[in-house]
Amino acid sequence: MEPTDVLVIGGSAAGVVAATTAKATYPDKRVVLARRDELSLVPCGIPYVFGSLGSTAKNLMPNDSLAKAGVELRTTEIASIDQETKKCRTADGEELEFDKLVIATGSEPLVPSWLPGADLNGVFTIPKNKLYIDYVLESLDRCRKLITIGGGFIGVEMSDELTKRGMNVTLVEILPHILGLAFDEEIAVRAQDLLQSRGVTVRTGVGVKAILGEDQVRGVSLDNGDELATDAVILSIGYKPATNLAADAGIELNERGSIKVDEYMRTRNPDIFAVGDCAEKRDFTTRKISGVMLASTATSEARVAGMNLYKLSAVKTFSGTIAIWSTGLGEDGFGCAGLTERAARTEGFDVITGVFEGIDKHPGALPGAHKQLVKLVAARDSGVILGGQVAGGPSAGELTNLIGLAIQNRMVANSLVTAQIGTHPLLTAAPTAYPVIKAAEQVLWKMSA
Amino acid sequence: MEPTDVLVIGGSAAGVVAATTAKATYPDKRVVLARRDELSLVPCGIPYVFGSLGSTAKNLMPNDSLAKAGVELRTTEIASIDQETKKCRTADGEELEFDKLVIATGSEPLVPSWLPGADLNGVFTIPKNKLYIDYVLESLDRCRKLITIGGGFIGVEMSDELTKRGMNVTLVEILPHILGLAFDEEIAVRAQDLLQSRGVTVRTGVGVKAILGEDQVRGVSLDNGDELATDAVILSIGYKPATNLAADAGIELNERGSIKVDEYMRTRNPDIFAVGDCAEKRDFTTRKISGVMLASTATSEARVAGMNLYKLSAVKTFSGTIAIWSTGLGEDGFGCAGLTERAARTEGFDVITGVFEGIDKHPGALPGAHKQLVKLVAARDSGVILGGQVAGGPSAGELTNLIGLAIQNRMVANSLVTAQIGTHPLLTAAPTAYPVIKAAEQVLWKMSA
Repeated sequence: MEPTDVLVIGGSAAGVVAATTAKATYPDKRVVLARRDELSLVPCGIPYVFGSLGSTAKNLMPNDSLAKAGVELRTTEIASIDQETKKCRTADGEELEFDKLVIATGSEPLVPSWLPGADLNGVFTIPKNKLYIDYVLESLDRCRKLITIGGGFIGVEMSDELTKRGMNVTLVEILPHILGLAFDEEIAVRAQDLLQSRGVTVRTGVGVKAILGEDQVRGVSLDNGDELATDAVILSIGYKPATNLAADAGIELNERGSIKVDEYMRTRNPDIFAVGDCAEKRDFTTRKISGVMLASTATSEARVAGMNLYKLSAVKTFSGTIAIWSTGLGEDGFGCAGLTERAARTEGFDVITGVFEGIDKHPGALPGAHKQLVKLVAARDSGVILGGQVAGGPSAGELTNLIGLAIQNRMVANSLVTAQIGTHPLLTAAPTAYPVIKAAEQVLWKMSA
Repeated sequence: MEPTDVLVIGGSAAGVVAATTAKATYPDKRVVLARRDELSLVPCGIPYVFGSLGSTAKNLMPNDSLAKAGVELRTTEIASIDQETKKCRTADGEELEFDKLVIATGSEPLVPSWLPGADLNGVFTIPKNKLYIDYVLESLDRCRKLITIGGGFIGVEMSDELTKRGMNVTLVEILPHILGLAFDEEIAVRAQDLLQSRGVTVRTGVGVKAILGEDQVRGVSLDNGDELATDAVILSIGYKPATNLAADAGIELNERGSIKVDEYMRTRNPDIFAVGDCAEKRDFTTRKISGVMLASTATSEARVAGMNLYKLSAVKTFSGTIAIWSTGLGEDGFGCAGLTERAARTEGFDVITGVFEGIDKHPGALPGAHKQLVKLVAARDSGVILGGQVAGGPSAGELTNLIGLAIQNRMVANSLVTAQIGTHPLLTAAPTAYPVIKAAEQVLWKMSA
């Protein structure tokens, strides 16, 4: 039996950050990260394996950074957790004792059991698993036509990258638009138009009735009766928390099957923490339980857990997910943070919006200048910024992060309008037309109207 | 005599923003912007006229946006202000009456009267004046060798752009490094090495004794006795507030010659406001009077003035400059906000720093990935972020703005470490290695050490 101080189960982004943060915060503790696979993929990089990168080897999380941080990596599968004796048993029958346990077992692709043909050969999912992704990559080499089911960001990024690879890709999404949960309609439409202009066929507002084929997939039949021929299908309809291990150990789950945690990321057992896709999330603003699974949320939770393991800090808490993320399609960047207008209205907030479209360099005559749109969603009574969406160029990711910081600081439109923003011809919009400020101005005018 | 409600004098970034904000806030008022020149240059774009843009015509502030905003543009030079009668007289003898006056007369290049030869033909400054810049552009066409005196951002950007244009450029800076006031040494060195690698000869730590020549410049003699031959010289040693008009009207100036203002941007006369380079600035953190002249500061002041003209708002104030700016050299971006480590220590703050260097995409194998360094300066007692510096790729501008927002919200290292940051392979660093969070972590470890 091997004693550890801190045992982390799961070695994707959340597990790695929890372990390295724990070791940095408590340098005297022995921190062990137990991971099933020797090599772990950079999770957000997976779609790019299929195009820009070309192989999983170029998309690995560096193991040596764990060693450098003083974290011990154990390649082993944890089969069970015993809360009573504070021991984990591996699939090989070994025992690992823990003082503090961090569960970071992540998520698994949803496979629609109700969908006929979902188990045919040539139907793939996108798990965070190097061996399986290698297998998908190799299998797709023999295919010409592909159907992606589900237009969330994994579906969109996979479709774009596989089109770049030369495949003939059709994306099918049951909602009226791709990325329809992340963006309000007018921004989703832009992303969709762009994806189509990049060569992906997009079918929205229609569901999939069945995947067709005997042994091998040969097509997809849609709700409206259409049949599409294909050589392969990628299912990207979502992910579910991987929490069997926790459930078997008697650790409480919520109604979504996620591990219940408090704002220090502790389960009901104060020595057991959970972080990342397997852990319960609440929305930053609505406080409702959320199904969001994002690296930004996961790594923030992991830092909070790592720092609070042996002593709680009231100023190092996880305050709920703002669901912040971004994506790129060629030279175009999209991002969002907080509530969309639609989500805020559905929830019952009286909101006003500000939208500004300009360019991401100035003057516009500079080479590489790109359109840049910002939409802010604010509470009418207070001017508090509840959400923001960006459609722009390569700086859209950091611009989204700036909006995210405004949301997390509960900034009001007044503070944004008087904020100081550095601007430079090659790097940003003009100081007279900085989109976040101009959108906040519109919020103000509407508030006082 | 012509009556106006709001009269703005000066039509660069600050004047334009003050006028358009005034009209948007008080739509019933007649807002007139009086500007000497028919056409006005985008101020930060001026260096790029000499390389990437090629002409001033591509670097104009669009006049039609004034008209669209409902602001009347008057091309006229204001010769005097009468506080008593609330009238301005133009150089043509016309009178413009005002209810509220906003002075946005900007700044003029410093010409070192103590420097022999500063008045020779072929010695240029860089004012915000289209006709003069056209003249410099044309004059430099006949030159092969150029010396830039002063390694602030105008000197650096001019040197880089004129090198791209094919000139043989030497930059002379009396401080140990270029950009030495904006950056701590280790970041300034990076910018300097980069500028040299792009073909500019950089001489630092040496002053200029005289500019040589009879009628036409032919060289520069340095403090150390060296003589450099040249066809032209650009003086970029700084700017002084253009406040003669205000001073003649009896409006109070501070010891730097800037118009004294309160946090609503009012002079002692509550009907007269001043914004931009001509207005007094205080540092956000030290509260000391500052000589910073930046579009970010100017346009923020202009928004505050425009909104407070007819009724003050306690939540729309200018809280002091964080001196935020960024610059680009090819694919490299640099930025800073708030206090440098050196400035903070000089001022008497007990500070700790966090530095993290990573890459601006992830995994690093993605095409176009660029090194990205962030340095944070924080108060040891509180963890409050006092300043930050960035050396990275094209996203460095928005990343600097994110740090600027953290400073303006007086965020502490704890809040940054637990912040949620959206990350994407093509747009940002990895969630496990986001430089602002990693640098804030270092601040925390040092605080608890």
